[in-house]
Amino acid sequence: MKRKNLSDAECPVARSLDVIGDGWSLLIIRDAFDGISRFSAFQKNLGIARSMLTARLLALVEQGVLETIPASDGTAYQEYVLTEMGRGLFPVIIALRQWGEDHLYQPDEQHSVLIDTQTGEPVTRLELRSKENQVLEWRDTTVRKVSPDLK
Amino acid sequence: MKRKNLSDAECPVARSLDVIGDGWSLLIIRDAFDGISRFSAFQKNLGIARSMLTARLLALVEQGVLETIPASDGTAYQEYVLTEMGRGLFPVIIALRQWGEDHLYQPDEQHSVLIDTQTGEPVTRLELRSKENQVLEWRDTTVRKVSPDLK
Repeated sequence: MKRKNLSDAECPVARSLDVIGDGWSLLIIRDAFDGISRFSAFQKNLGIARSMLTARLLALVEQGVLETIPASDGTAYQEYVLTEMGRGLFPVIIALRQWGEDHLYQPDEQHSVLIDTQTGEPVTRLELRSKENQVLEWRDTTVRKVSPDLK
Repeated sequence: MKRKNLSDAECPVARSLDVIGDGWSLLIIRDAFDGISRFSAFQKNLGIARSMLTARLLALVEQGVLETIPASDGTAYQEYVLTEMGRGLFPVIIALRQWGEDHLYQPDEQHSVLIDTQTGEPVTRLELRSKENQVLEWRDTTVRKVSPDLK
């Protein structure tokens, strides 16, 4: 994918997509949240070509989203785990999950469900709130851009 | 981008990425939330090749994320606007924005800010909550997969 370099964009959405802006990266991150950490396990779960997976994992490590650690079982394998920065992507994955649940399944079709481990109950929806704790829809918000004059 | 077909995946994250799994699509959707609706305006804002933009817009319309309407000023132009399904991506864009704000700017670097239009105050963070209204971190959750035996 070739596009304008977004790493110095003023918009935080653009910068985020510059780091994780292809489907493979977000699927690898989803798998990491599910506890997958070995190359072979990512490869098997995603059905991705080895060369592509190698490139994506390397990029995610370079960008600080994943880090490599020695295998937990003492073998010579490396494991890929989310850094604190990577774990910060949890709301992105949840937002994608909830949108998929809403729009991409037939009424009678089953899908995996995110549950609160402690209670076994499904989690509630992500909500954006005002400082006064009101739920905000997209119509209630505006992006305030940085004025070049104020820089 | 070539990969396993994810449109019938059991995981809602995978299905979502099958629809919006490249950086361009999410940037187009971000622009649509910002009120951009014309081909020329998307093209100018994103610096994307015309052929690529045409393909992405067409795919987003086919998938039901955008729809075309006659130009609001009565000219012969088409406008691309978010459908209800597309507007449902608001939390995805916000989650990406907040992650970018957290991790991809220097402390003294300015970025655009999402504000509550009514108060002019920045919005608060997206939070995932349990049914008991407790904030949930990723460690507090588990994905319950659909068992093939139960289908």
